[in-house]
Formats: sequence, C-alpha cells, structure tokens
Amino acid sequence: MRLGTVFHEGKVKVVAALDDETLMDLDRAAELARYETDTFTSMQKVIDQGDYGLEMATHLLRRANRRTVIRVEEVTFLPPLMPVQFRDCLVFEEHLKNSFAQAGRLSGRRFEIPQVWYDQPIYYKGNRMSFVGHGADVIWPAYSEHLDIELELAAVIGRHGKDIRPEEAADYIFGYTILNDFSARDAQMAEMAGQLGPAKGKDFDTGNALGPFILTADEVGHPVALRMEARVNGEIWGGGTSADMHHDFGAILAHVSASETIWPGEVIGSGTVGTGCGLETGRRLAPGDVVELEIEKIGVLRNRIVRPE
Amino acid sequence: MRLGTVFHEGKVKVVAALDDETLMDLDRAAELARYETDTFTSMQKVIDQGDYGLEMATHLLRRANRRTVIRVEEVTFLPPLMPVQFRDCLVFEEHLKNSFAQAGRLSGRRFEIPQVWYDQPIYYKGNRMSFVGHGADVIWPAYSEHLDIELELAAVIGRHGKDIRPEEAADYIFGYTILNDFSARDAQMAEMAGQLGPAKGKDFDTGNALGPFILTADEVGHPVALRMEARVNGEIWGGGTSADMHHDFGAILAHVSASETIWPGEVIGSGTVGTGCGLETGRRLAPGDVVELEIEKIGVLRNRIVRPE
Repeated sequence: MRLGTVFHEGKVKVVAALDDETLMDLDRAAELARYETDTFTSMQKVIDQGDYGLEMATHLLRRANRRTVIRVEEVTFLPPLMPVQFRDCLVFEEHLKNSFAQAGRLSGRRFEIPQVWYDQPIYYKGNRMSFVGHGADVIWPAYSEHLDIELELAAVIGRHGKDIRPEEAADYIFGYTILNDFSARDAQMAEMAGQLGPAKGKDFDTGNALGPFILTADEVGHPVALRMEARVNGEIWGGGTSADMHHDFGAILAHVSASETIWPGEVIGSGTVGTGCGLETGRRLAPGDVVELEIEKIGVLRNRIVRPE
Repeated sequence: MRLGTVFHEGKVKVVAALDDETLMDLDRAAELARYETDTFTSMQKVIDQGDYGLEMATHLLRRANRRTVIRVEEVTFLPPLMPVQFRDCLVFEEHLKNSFAQAGRLSGRRFEIPQVWYDQPIYYKGNRMSFVGHGADVIWPAYSEHLDIELELAAVIGRHGKDIRPEEAADYIFGYTILNDFSARDAQMAEMAGQLGPAKGKDFDTGNALGPFILTADEVGHPVALRMEARVNGEIWGGGTSADMHHDFGAILAHVSASETIWPGEVIGSGTVGTGCGLETGRRLAPGDVVELEIEKIGVLRNRIVRPE
C-alpha cells in the first residue's frame, strides 16, 4: 500500500494511491463506512494504531467507489508526516568517495573516508519542522549561493523500540518514502569545520522534501533494494539502488536504538545514494529548476526551486 | 516567575515556585478560580498562550492559599517541557580551549579552535525525546565506559520567528533553564571523526536533564548574565557565568532563524560553560554519583547516575 497525506476540500486527510492518477480518500471512506475514528486525518494517527491502522486501510481500499476516489490534481500533497524526530545517515560509499574527490579538488586538501564510517552508520539529526511535500516550492535560503539536492531513501518508524537487533529491525519499520535533503553547500562546508556537523547547511525552511507516498514495509523485502534516480529539468543527474547501502536499515536501527528508545513517526534518511547529488558530479541548482526524485515502487517526488528577489 | 512541570496526585501540572520548598499548583488554582482552561496541564500550552498564559499565572499567584500550595517533596519533577526541537550550541571559548587541550593530551594530536567558531554560533541538533527532569536517575548507556556532565544554560523559545535581528531576539525568549547534556565521551569521540557531529555520544535515553524550573525572561536582562556551578557528590567541578558567552542568545537566535522559522517550545542550549564538564579537568562520572548543576535565580538541577548491572 502507498499512503500519503494531502490537503483536499479544506481538510488534511490520509489517502492511498490507487495508481499514478487516482487516490482513495481514506478519511471519507471511513466516514461512509461508519467507522467511528479520526485515524485517517493524520499519518501519525495511522502509525500509532499499529497493525490495526493498516488493517482498516486495507478494508477500506476494497470499497473504493466514486464517492471516495479523488484525482491527484485535486489535492495538495503535504509531507506524509511531520517526523517526531529526524535523523539522517550517510551510508553510501560511492557518495562519500565522489564528494570527497570534489571537495579535494575545490580545497586542495585530501579527504579520506574515516574508519568509523565503516564501523557504524554515523548520522546527524536534522530539522523536523522544515518538511514540505511533493509539488511544494523549495525556497532558496538568503544566505546561500550554492544549493544542491540529495536523493535519499527514508524509513518511517512504526513502533517503539530499544536495543533492537539488526535481524528484528524490519518489524519496527512502518514503510519507506523518498527524501530530498536540500543542502546549502557553502553554509554546510563553512560550519562543518566547527566539528558539530551540518546545521544551517540543511536547516532552512522547506529544506526537506518528503513523499509523495510512504510505501508500507510489507510491499518490499528487507534489506530493501529499490532503484533510485534524480532528475533536474528532465536531465538525469544520477542514481543507483538502495541495495548498495553499506549499513542497511537493520544495522541503522540497531545502532540508533542502542540504549535509546525510537518512537513511532520518526524518520531516518539513508544518506545520499552515489551520484545522487550535484556536488558529486560538479552540478548546481539554479532558480526555477524542477527536481524529480524517483524511487521504484514509491513514485516521483517533484519540487521547484524558487529564489526570492 | 519560575515555572516547572511536575507529576502530582496522578496528574501532570504546571507549578510556580514560591520559594525553594514550596510550589503553587497553577492547574488547581485555575480550577478553584473557575478559569475554564487546561492551560496549566502542560508548559507547551502556557507558552502557546503567549503573554496571556503568563498573565493568568501572575493573577493566580496572588491567590496562593493552602489549597493550592504543595511542597516540593510531594511532587516528581518532569522536564519543564518536551522540546519541539532541541539545538545545542558551543559558545564558551574556555570550554573549547580546555577540551582541546585534554583531547590533545589523550590523542597526541593538536587541536585549534577553527575560525568559523568565532564567526558564527555553531550548533547541532540533539535528541528531543530523551529529556528527564530534576531528581530523575540518569541511566549509563551500555556502550560507554566514559560518562560526563555538561553544565549549560538553555533558552526556551516563546514565539514563532524568522530572520530575527539580534537586538530583537529577547522578545522571542520565553525563559531560561538549566541543561545537563550528559555525554558518553568515548562514543562521541569515535563518531565525531565521521564529521557529522555528536550522535550516540549524546542521544541515549535520559541523556538530557532539564529544569527544575524555567525562569521567565522578564526576570533577567539581555544578554543574560547568571552564575553557573557544577558539583558532583558535593565537590565543585567547575563553573562560570553566562556573561562569558562569545555569542549571546541574540546572536544565536539571529543565526538559527536565518531563512528558518523557530517555534514556540524549542530549546536551545548555550553549550558548556568553561570548566563545566569533567573532560576539561580530567574528571569522570562513576555509578552512584549525584550531580548538581546550579544556575543563579533558576535553582539546582540534581540527578543521580545509575549503571545497570
């Protein structure tokens, strides 16, 4: 099942994708079926219901009719959820090699992948309040001259957990979605010399696009192997497959949950797939660019870059 | 006014400190005054009410009587709020100098404060879900052998804002509280070689203690100058004054809010005051230690270190 959150007829509601053109309005369907529930007014509520939320959605999907089907052009996509917490990893070796090669060229310094990168899925925590959905404009931050995309697969956590073993991690994942971790490279490079990781290089409003749908975990295997592609104005910038993650989401959840509770509704990004950003291949975004990130089975996440005068 | 969040008689409620021994139950007082409001069931609700929340509290405080006054030993302190987002800065030069000197001694490498530290208040985002309050046990994370404290002043954001000028920043601050940013130094040092900043070095459950009270911003000037002291088992480990912040909260809010919205209920830590952690002076926590962080006018934040067998 592919679930999204949209604004439609003055209301926020959870929808299921029937195909690329049509959606089922689960909130309306629940009302017509006389389910006494507000579950389908937010993805967090669906997730918090555990298996029951998805069971209800599955039942409702069988009853699609013209009173519950809406066309994608009638809705405004919101991010599927506002993350309870947002972490972002860095697990594609090719991305790191390409980025270091470019950074070396620009700075004249030499960068090597540190051993710790191989030993553990390092991560930082991003801004949970700056997410936008499919179709939203991304606003160029005033302090930057160098804006970039990052093509990532993101996992949405479905259950509380702590000290999770890698082999049981799949049980804790609600589903997968597409993340564009927009990055102000100039701000990022400057601040990362301070050793605390990225901050204003990632944290600006509209700086994280998510969606259009969450593909529920039952639709894919584990570890998840999906083709990924980034396009700007129709030109392919790069891509790869999530099968190349050096640490898969099992290893990531084991690391993150060590002595630490993870919460339903958290979002964890994979980090950029190799060639999944402009930095790696010497490209930069320009105002007006239309960015499309596609991940197999999930869909296409499209956003336009707007630079205020 | 000093406001806290406590658990008392089966209920979460917001209290005001009358002195070091007694609290006023604002939730009960509102009920007795027949205010039709649930404002005083969470600090976030008080903050979301803007000036009106503090006005109500001020009115209620005048009506303290034996039906609304409770003793501190009757309550369990919770963190004053669960942050909407949690950032932590690093703005005390002495802390950085001392830490680099120790790290140099341990590693044989030489560390210098990078220029960017002087140019901007660098920060990382911490775990917003791992906060505990005054009096809570702090659980030693299983993966660490080296646990430390960090004595910090934290600002609580009171209003939405974006592109805030340093000179208007005081209007956006609801108040100040004490933060103990417990740190697993071994995990932190290992992962920070990966360039993404601290993660498991800070993110474990109970790893952030906050409280006991938020001192409302009207009680102090701006920039805020308060004496700070850290004690472990009664022994003074270090301390200083928030007047020594190289970037004050005005500069911090200006930096954070550039092209980015800040939200009511966010918490921003100052970073450790000089000598405010064991790393700087070669000390380490041990199981059973009782840590007290004191900041003038706010109070004492006390936590005990527990290492599971």
